[in-house]
Amino acid sequence: MTTLYGYFRSSAAYRVRIALNLKGLDYDQAPVNLVKGEQRGQENLDRNPQGLVPTLETDDGVQLTQSLAICEYLEERYPEPALLPTDAEGRARVRSLAQLIACEIHPLNNLKVLKYLVGELGVDEAAKLAWYRHWITEGFAALEARLAGEDATGDFCHGDTPALADLCLVPQVFNAERFECDLSAYPTIQRIVANCRALDAFHRASPAEQPDAG
Amino acid sequence: MTTLYGYFRSSAAYRVRIALNLKGLDYDQAPVNLVKGEQRGQENLDRNPQGLVPTLETDDGVQLTQSLAICEYLEERYPEPALLPTDAEGRARVRSLAQLIACEIHPLNNLKVLKYLVGELGVDEAAKLAWYRHWITEGFAALEARLAGEDATGDFCHGDTPALADLCLVPQVFNAERFECDLSAYPTIQRIVANCRALDAFHRASPAEQPDAG
Repeated sequence: MTTLYGYFRSSAAYRVRIALNLKGLDYDQAPVNLVKGEQRGQENLDRNPQGLVPTLETDDGVQLTQSLAICEYLEERYPEPALLPTDAEGRARVRSLAQLIACEIHPLNNLKVLKYLVGELGVDEAAKLAWYRHWITEGFAALEARLAGEDATGDFCHGDTPALADLCLVPQVFNAERFECDLSAYPTIQRIVANCRALDAFHRASPAEQPDAG
Repeated sequence: MTTLYGYFRSSAAYRVRIALNLKGLDYDQAPVNLVKGEQRGQENLDRNPQGLVPTLETDDGVQLTQSLAICEYLEERYPEPALLPTDAEGRARVRSLAQLIACEIHPLNNLKVLKYLVGELGVDEAAKLAWYRHWITEGFAALEARLAGEDATGDFCHGDTPALADLCLVPQVFNAERFECDLSAYPTIQRIVANCRALDAFHRASPAEQPDAG
């Protein structure tokens, strides 16, 4: 059986849940409570030396880390329905949109980073919130420019089927809404996210639907 | 002709240079001076709406962004020599090691982030340096644990040929050395980096060898 070690509100786990659902794969969930610090416990470190979630334990018992690497693995092992287009340029476009979020926005707003800002740098609540919103605003502005300006954009980030970029976008928008970021300047992002949320695979992956939702 | 828009000291451009060299591909270099702010100029924004480097312009005239997406594109178009192993678990391992660096260490130590710390949060030089070293130390500790503990590690991060993880590791170690981080606790990382640096493809990609090296 495939087991996902995750947390209902973790964006990275959320991406993997969407991928598993889109692929129609069954999986068990084993929650790791990030607020209680369980990610730094020995049990989680043994499967994930970075002390993070998600970890995907495959049906062969192999433990995989890093959400995008896990999604690429799922794509290679279970090619249908595809999370990447067939042409090299299209695949590069989808990956670059995914990485715009996963390498440029999300790492800066991680729980451990926010804790460092407050604990080590003495940043107050208002400045922490400004930091959070700054990286979302900067990233979403670039993302909106690309999605609105590039012909390959369709009902989803790339064409008319959900792909790797969409399963990064929806969790990032969930975070933005949670921190009350103004998203009115990003109509293309909003349109695509609405299309995603209308799909059962995205709905079932959402934080509120998880067994550990608080 | 393939053109790389980069900057000699950019880690992300450095990764792509190594990939191009390992694949034996010819390319022109078009420097974008990050210290002078050329990345935010209209010319660069037209090719890279995030205002970043690198951008790879392919021989078909397609412009690609995000270093790991570019490397995956090169891998798909020019499969030999391979930057990823052939088995799905091995590919996931290499990608997860690459992403440990590209999604967890490097984004936090980017120039724009350091500027925000100083400009918006009033962080002093010592605290900025501590921030820089903190994310390298945390990331390298997890990476060393994985590389030292996992059987798949060889002369390089995965087996005995350089792969996607190595071309993220070498630029990250360059950064660590530049900011005088103590690397004595990471013997496996040091051993692998020495093996990489002995290869011409890595040497020719190093910042000091670039036309725009200051």
